[in-house]
Amino acid sequence: MNTTFIFEQIQRKKSYLCVGLDTDIRRIPSHLQSTDDPIFEFNKQIIEATADFCVAYKPNLAFYESLGAKGWESLQKTLDYIPDDIFTIADAKRGDIGNTSDLYARTFFEHFQFDAVTVAPYMGVDSVKPFLNYPDKFTILLALTSNVGSADFQDLSLESGGRLFEKVLEISQNWADENQLMYVVGATKAEQFAQIRKVIPNHFLLVPGVGAQGGDLEAVSRYGMNSKCGLLVNSSRGIIYAGSGRDFATKAQEASQKMAEEMEQYLDKYL
Amino acid sequence: MNTTFIFEQIQRKKSYLCVGLDTDIRRIPSHLQSTDDPIFEFNKQIIEATADFCVAYKPNLAFYESLGAKGWESLQKTLDYIPDDIFTIADAKRGDIGNTSDLYARTFFEHFQFDAVTVAPYMGVDSVKPFLNYPDKFTILLALTSNVGSADFQDLSLESGGRLFEKVLEISQNWADENQLMYVVGATKAEQFAQIRKVIPNHFLLVPGVGAQGGDLEAVSRYGMNSKCGLLVNSSRGIIYAGSGRDFATKAQEASQKMAEEMEQYLDKYL
Repeated sequence: MNTTFIFEQIQRKKSYLCVGLDTDIRRIPSHLQSTDDPIFEFNKQIIEATADFCVAYKPNLAFYESLGAKGWESLQKTLDYIPDDIFTIADAKRGDIGNTSDLYARTFFEHFQFDAVTVAPYMGVDSVKPFLNYPDKFTILLALTSNVGSADFQDLSLESGGRLFEKVLEISQNWADENQLMYVVGATKAEQFAQIRKVIPNHFLLVPGVGAQGGDLEAVSRYGMNSKCGLLVNSSRGIIYAGSGRDFATKAQEASQKMAEEMEQYLDKYL
Repeated sequence: MNTTFIFEQIQRKKSYLCVGLDTDIRRIPSHLQSTDDPIFEFNKQIIEATADFCVAYKPNLAFYESLGAKGWESLQKTLDYIPDDIFTIADAKRGDIGNTSDLYARTFFEHFQFDAVTVAPYMGVDSVKPFLNYPDKFTILLALTSNVGSADFQDLSLESGGRLFEKVLEISQNWADENQLMYVVGATKAEQFAQIRKVIPNHFLLVPGVGAQGGDLEAVSRYGMNSKCGLLVNSSRGIIYAGSGRDFATKAQEASQKMAEEMEQYLDKYL
């Protein structure tokens, strides 16, 4: 999958929504708990309900790992169930020395066949390069995250000028272009998107933090959109837990449709 | 397990060796490949051969994840097989927003019952705190890693003085003390250990990079040791792949014994 294809899907569905599959076994409606694989059963119904309104799914690996081998199986079945024209992101935030990152890349790109994986930049070039060895896959590098702790290190001013996250944007552009790299930039930092777009005008940004974390979708769209949209805005809890009973899938459909309708307006206005 | 207990084990075994269980299915001797669980069979024999000479085992999660659900089972069996008086480290390099880190902590500390987990600092305080909610467990924060890419960001000079990895050491000391926090500092940076010890005199350091990566054990020990040793020096490939045939366990025993004997000298000299 490449950026042109992603943009085509955005235009077709009039949506740049990514649905985060942060599927927590403790929050699955009780009527599904007795099924063979409650995590997959939940995801299956969420996917059926939301696939018309989103262009990406992002399973958060922590939720699957926490269930051990069984969670791994649920993840595989979920991936197999996602329609082929929808972009899949392993939200794994991995990053290690070369031979280890190489194995992580193989796990997510070959074993699970994800289209993209999120990667932490702290260990530098040789921790990221193994993911870039897959020309048809995307590496989504953490830049400026949506959480409070992003101020601790990402926001630090450097002696050479600029802040750490800006250095991450700058240096990593030597590693690959927008056909292989995307960046995580939190929706809670909407005021910074205009500045970020000066450094990376062409890359897609994966934007968490709308919804439960309080980010502003219109501000993100106004300051962050480029000529190919360039945004994948994620919502996890706001969609998959929009309901908590037997009607959870209908509620998720309504929540995703509502976001997509809002996005359609912003595509008309800012694209 | 606490630092006093770890130090007692170091004194008893006269070793501060950590054996890295980076068990790669492609490097397991051929006579084990036909067993039910080659990864576990290999680890079991490595543990039997090296347990007298080391005080910690560090499975690298990438190697287990790359095998999917089956790898997860091998990891669980490996953990169950490690003697109770040996410190166990999940080399996972995780780190995410609070509710996600919380799940990772639960996976490694509750599900697998590891004593410690490695964590990446890039996302700041709320990505690390969930791991610190376990008072009897250790969080091992990446500070200055052993790879080439550590120069890209960790070594950057900050406007406020010092370098990024020093800021990580400094800020994180507000989060927990040496009874809950350790740091990763690569053996390839031996000349920096004296400076690092000025900032964190009391913490244990997990030191990768001896062996395959070229770090100098004597220099690390001279500049890095404190009054409770304060070092866990890891070797992975240098021990577990010391041999490649039917005698792999004997070769691993010899390699770990050789390192322990060298460590005994440094304990006499520098403790």
